[in-house]
Amino acid sequence: MNLHFKTNEKGNLEIGGADALELAHKYGTPLYVLDEMRIRDNYQRVHQAFSSEYSNFQIFYAAKANTNLAVMRILEQEGSGIDAVSPGEIYTALLAGFEPERILFTGNNVTSEELQFALDSGVRINLDSVSMLERLAKLPGAKGSRISFRVNPMVGAGHHDHCITGGELSKFGIMEQEAVEIYKKAHKLGFNPVGIHTHIGSGILDPEPFKLAVQVLMDIAGRVHQEAGVEFEFIDFGGGLGIPYTPEEPVLEIKKFAGEIVALYKSKLSEYGIDNPTMCIEPGRYIVGDAGYLLTRVNTIKQSYRKFVGVDAGFNTLLRPTMYGSYHHILVADKPEAPTTQNVDVAGNICESGDLFARDRPLPEIEESDVLSIMNAGAYSFSMSSQYNSRPLPAEVIVNNGKVDVIRDRETYSDILSKQNLPLRFFK
Amino acid sequence: MNLHFKTNEKGNLEIGGADALELAHKYGTPLYVLDEMRIRDNYQRVHQAFSSEYSNFQIFYAAKANTNLAVMRILEQEGSGIDAVSPGEIYTALLAGFEPERILFTGNNVTSEELQFALDSGVRINLDSVSMLERLAKLPGAKGSRISFRVNPMVGAGHHDHCITGGELSKFGIMEQEAVEIYKKAHKLGFNPVGIHTHIGSGILDPEPFKLAVQVLMDIAGRVHQEAGVEFEFIDFGGGLGIPYTPEEPVLEIKKFAGEIVALYKSKLSEYGIDNPTMCIEPGRYIVGDAGYLLTRVNTIKQSYRKFVGVDAGFNTLLRPTMYGSYHHILVADKPEAPTTQNVDVAGNICESGDLFARDRPLPEIEESDVLSIMNAGAYSFSMSSQYNSRPLPAEVIVNNGKVDVIRDRETYSDILSKQNLPLRFFK
Repeated sequence: MNLHFKTNEKGNLEIGGADALELAHKYGTPLYVLDEMRIRDNYQRVHQAFSSEYSNFQIFYAAKANTNLAVMRILEQEGSGIDAVSPGEIYTALLAGFEPERILFTGNNVTSEELQFALDSGVRINLDSVSMLERLAKLPGAKGSRISFRVNPMVGAGHHDHCITGGELSKFGIMEQEAVEIYKKAHKLGFNPVGIHTHIGSGILDPEPFKLAVQVLMDIAGRVHQEAGVEFEFIDFGGGLGIPYTPEEPVLEIKKFAGEIVALYKSKLSEYGIDNPTMCIEPGRYIVGDAGYLLTRVNTIKQSYRKFVGVDAGFNTLLRPTMYGSYHHILVADKPEAPTTQNVDVAGNICESGDLFARDRPLPEIEESDVLSIMNAGAYSFSMSSQYNSRPLPAEVIVNNGKVDVIRDRETYSDILSKQNLPLRFFK
Repeated sequence: MNLHFKTNEKGNLEIGGADALELAHKYGTPLYVLDEMRIRDNYQRVHQAFSSEYSNFQIFYAAKANTNLAVMRILEQEGSGIDAVSPGEIYTALLAGFEPERILFTGNNVTSEELQFALDSGVRINLDSVSMLERLAKLPGAKGSRISFRVNPMVGAGHHDHCITGGELSKFGIMEQEAVEIYKKAHKLGFNPVGIHTHIGSGILDPEPFKLAVQVLMDIAGRVHQEAGVEFEFIDFGGGLGIPYTPEEPVLEIKKFAGEIVALYKSKLSEYGIDNPTMCIEPGRYIVGDAGYLLTRVNTIKQSYRKFVGVDAGFNTLLRPTMYGSYHHILVADKPEAPTTQNVDVAGNICESGDLFARDRPLPEIEESDVLSIMNAGAYSFSMSSQYNSRPLPAEVIVNNGKVDVIRDRETYSDILSKQNLPLRFFK
């Protein structure tokens, strides 16, 4: 079992020193629970693995995985930077106390107004297209900016088609064959291009696809250095570090991974005569994924043509299983280590057939009112939630050494209605 | 071309008498636009088609398609009932002025607290499982309630796997073979079962699958009538009426459809000696789907390994293309009837590869700053939107005879942060 969880002396699932059953009882369900120390441990593990091999190393946490202010504050305290993909993420990162130079804005299909916002905020801007470069050049105050480019290196990797962010079908980045020219153009337009970036995918559990990306990006960086005269201050390989979602998937061996990546990186620096740029990566899922739990209570056991275990969360609460077919392991909170005795469908409370957290899943005996814990719900979970079916968003708590803080209040119906205006004629 | 749209004298897309370009300019993008008269026309067309064949007929609008208060008020004025799937939808319907007896609550995996809410609200409760019946029976004030059951008749139909809501894989309803027993049990528990309900799918464009459902449900109703002595006050066939999403798909011939369905219904009433119950259907998409437009502005034209047209909306704004692979037709707002000259990908602004509104789509020439209209965005569009990537939800306007009302204000960053609490220790 490679999944990260603990059982307490009562035999219940423990999260950050708190009893999952008690959390569900006290704060209601569905409830997102974050384990603060697990976030810190994950950050430190990956930072240590890379920085021990190459000291000029910086993590930019991919905030879209989980943009809670509390999560952002934890990562600020740990020394992380932020990979921001929208003005809203820039704003949240600034509010969480990040200095602008520790925020790298990598947007896709960015408007000129959003570019102006990024420019005014003082964050670093990573450009995704020729259009973005040309439009940035027209904005007041843009000249002289230290910028970088996202390159699409024709290789992609990941756990789902939707998550292959490199390759010929991908909307992201500039083509590798136009890289030298765009850096020259940036110089001509008065910019100071100092970085290069790529991101090839998501959920990567072994070094090979990532190494391929490093190799290709470094070869591109080498050409840009030699042919466009760019002195790189940073080279950013994006995110993609995976975690096991099933009990059988391997844990990423982060020290071995970092060792191989850094060795390749150093050999390429030397091959191209590039002088000690900051090596950057942008993990999101790896930092927060297994630090999050979605607690949901069983309300209905139904024997239909198949057996359904019905819970009080739905794909509005956690979209990944329905949208991507993602596997999320499910434990019974008062017996997380009980042997499985039946295969059941775990169904949500949304009125769509696809609203299932698991199909034909081996689970122990389950009764109505049991609390289930949907595991690995720290990344791309709350951040993708919606009010579909007019369901208010759930609460979130963070736990550290048994101390529980509510970091997001449960919504009420008023939150669904808060932006609505009914024109007078409709009252007639 | 079976898609519903109009071009004004300037050659621009017209929505409810307003110019789409002017709407985008005045209210910003992305912007949802609803055409009030189209909603009313759609309602009246289907109501007329059925009620002219069988006067004891009632529509229950499937509110989950679009829960805007304005939309709900329009349907209240038109005489519709509401198909509500959650307490939030019950609450919204009450707020919109619906009498409780015009609201039918059909939840799946409903908690006892939610059942109590439904009971206290006075709406009609349509039960989905034996568990729900047994738990309702324990609630104070439940005895004597006029209830109904949702039956899963082992047939399903629709446009996507996720939308096949009948059949052996479906989590919804009770099995057809347990129908007679559950009605007997309801009697024993002191309830007054007066209705029967099914829903087999979504996006149905011809009568055949729907007729199959009517036939099967009527045979079940007949057995329940004869063997459990239930006098049906209503028989509800659920929703599923489709609209064309592509220009080639047929328009549902609603008069022919209604004629065939009602003829079958009447023959089955007569076969089983059931006395004139209200015939109910629950359209959602058919009422609001083609009354909605998502206006989004092009900010980036990118020639990568393929050509991308990048816009300022994403799958957070409109999930259906990414989640279901749904086709949504796209028009250029200032030349909706221009011939297509190129095949392009229309990409959103979310940092996921799957964030595409169209792949390899034939479109006319498009330039940066053009406004695109994503068609048929009235149903399951805003209602499934999220703040993913920390993007505030868009504004919505409703248009009638050229008069524009903002029915939902555009969110700001403060709406993303409004429920969050940062524990004091994180300020250190």
